[in-house]
Amino acid sequence: MLEFDNTERTNLGELGEFGLISYLTKAVEINEPSTLKGIGDDAAVLDFSNKKTLISTDLLLEGIHFDLRYVPLKHLGYKAVQVNLSDIYAMNGTASQITFSIGLSSKFPLEAVEEIYQGALIACKKYNVDLIGGDTSASVQGLVISVTSIGFADEDQIAYRSGAQEGDLLCVSGDLGAAYVGLQLLEREKNIFLENPNIQPDLEGKDYIVERQLKPEARRDIVELLAKIGIKPNAMIDVSDGLASEIIHICEASDKGCKLYEDKIPLDSMTYETAREFGIDPTVCALNGGEDYELLFTIPQADYDKIKGSMDITVIGHITQASEGCQMISKSGKVYPITAQGWNAFKD
Amino acid sequence: MLEFDNTERTNLGELGEFGLISYLTKAVEINEPSTLKGIGDDAAVLDFSNKKTLISTDLLLEGIHFDLRYVPLKHLGYKAVQVNLSDIYAMNGTASQITFSIGLSSKFPLEAVEEIYQGALIACKKYNVDLIGGDTSASVQGLVISVTSIGFADEDQIAYRSGAQEGDLLCVSGDLGAAYVGLQLLEREKNIFLENPNIQPDLEGKDYIVERQLKPEARRDIVELLAKIGIKPNAMIDVSDGLASEIIHICEASDKGCKLYEDKIPLDSMTYETAREFGIDPTVCALNGGEDYELLFTIPQADYDKIKGSMDITVIGHITQASEGCQMISKSGKVYPITAQGWNAFKD
Repeated sequence: MLEFDNTERTNLGELGEFGLISYLTKAVEINEPSTLKGIGDDAAVLDFSNKKTLISTDLLLEGIHFDLRYVPLKHLGYKAVQVNLSDIYAMNGTASQITFSIGLSSKFPLEAVEEIYQGALIACKKYNVDLIGGDTSASVQGLVISVTSIGFADEDQIAYRSGAQEGDLLCVSGDLGAAYVGLQLLEREKNIFLENPNIQPDLEGKDYIVERQLKPEARRDIVELLAKIGIKPNAMIDVSDGLASEIIHICEASDKGCKLYEDKIPLDSMTYETAREFGIDPTVCALNGGEDYELLFTIPQADYDKIKGSMDITVIGHITQASEGCQMISKSGKVYPITAQGWNAFKD
Repeated sequence: MLEFDNTERTNLGELGEFGLISYLTKAVEINEPSTLKGIGDDAAVLDFSNKKTLISTDLLLEGIHFDLRYVPLKHLGYKAVQVNLSDIYAMNGTASQITFSIGLSSKFPLEAVEEIYQGALIACKKYNVDLIGGDTSASVQGLVISVTSIGFADEDQIAYRSGAQEGDLLCVSGDLGAAYVGLQLLEREKNIFLENPNIQPDLEGKDYIVERQLKPEARRDIVELLAKIGIKPNAMIDVSDGLASEIIHICEASDKGCKLYEDKIPLDSMTYETAREFGIDPTVCALNGGEDYELLFTIPQADYDKIKGSMDITVIGHITQASEGCQMISKSGKVYPITAQGWNAFKD
């Protein structure tokens, strides 16, 4: 399903590593005031004089994190950046720079690398982030992407996972489970295609959930909104591994428990219907699906009035004493312990 | 030749990603005052109040950058860190933190991952650097290591590649070419072993050059020495791709030329002799070999008296006008243009 125009193919071997780097970085602009020196020296030089520096890093590996049979390269570059920026926003910070490293087969044409890079630069531009470095290498092992994101924050504005207080409202941005359902859909269409290459993928009317999987958006807008309405979350994390896993992270780091209400979990109607078509419980998609890149955070009850009008923030529960554990109250009123089924890429 | 005790094998699938991370990070200590928060949240939090922040990143891929048939895992972890710290020192800065990401097959036993990690932590401890984050993932593609190094410097102490001045002395630390010759030796012994597994590798008396390949040391001591004797290099770079390539980087970035004297290039006697045994010109090993991780820098002539007693710094030439180009004066007095033959991993 990966469509790539084969009419233009420039061999990477002809260019060499330096040639490739200089070709790719031609389009790189520096806009962020904290970037003193970007690409072109042994290290980038940044200035965060009165702020604290935030650093996060992620590895994206072909065959584990993405499947080039249905992930367009430009989307892949875009997503690799978003996934990383999300970690900076989850600290209640401002993302300002990234490094972007790629390992790729010499069989990859230059035009394909450029697609990935363009996707990354589109994300950078949209989020006011400078690309300040990286590494480019041949790989005998498929495509490897490693991104490090850098940001800043005032010390008293940083939201750690460990700050949740008893009585805090547990809030989440956007809706959950869509990226997981989108992935199921893409996998199904891939398998149909592999069995019969004459059948074109049928993603008609499923744009939202497919886009949530292929082209997630880190929630900078939520960090900005919270600052605007005068809320500093007591604890915050981004939802990358599924709601259940992230709730447990906050509760463990804060030494607290929580009550989560199933009927409050925000689900898009397309997520709900498609999950049903696949015979999967939509709540399970939200709890264990992952890759939503929404923000999960806790705020004092006194701040409730500030968020109650927001279309984009949902109160899904509250923080309790640690002794009560992490519980979900189901739609029928039953109480279940929340367990992080999570995702174990090391399992065969 | 990779020896690994197979009596203890813990399956990564049993542990899962979170289990692996918490197992590996037990031994991580935070010692650097600028680390406010290390591993355990969405991002690390650092404080470089009055300094500039330096960032550099490198990707190390199995089959391209290392061969597990002769690279011991602990050395690999150690080298992955050194290679990155070297970039921070090359800015005349202090390295203070790293992130360390690994992608590895689920077939890898826990004990093997731990070896890599231990090597990384030994390097961190030795160089006063905190390990503050990373990512751990399954890989279907062999071993992937990505390291980002973070450091700091006073703005007026940062040595860019672009600062070389006409008349500057061109200096290099340590000696060159040994890592390349060490690699040839390891490759030869590997091939003998592959042909006849009963023949044990013969590296007798070759410790220095083998160690230069397997366990390089970033030159923090040179940065400290220069500070102590009151020298701020006008330009600096680390020698990772070979002397020729790095000289050209400095000259191009500074819009200058240079004269390099072949007879001044520092070569260890074991490097010289072993290169001869292989029928390679020792000068070519220094110019194009790479992986020396020495520092190449330019200083004003007025600073000559400060370094002339140093055993560890050699003046190998001087900076000229750009119009003169980059030239090497051979032992016989002939003048050759310096070309970056370099290393092209994309060439088959």
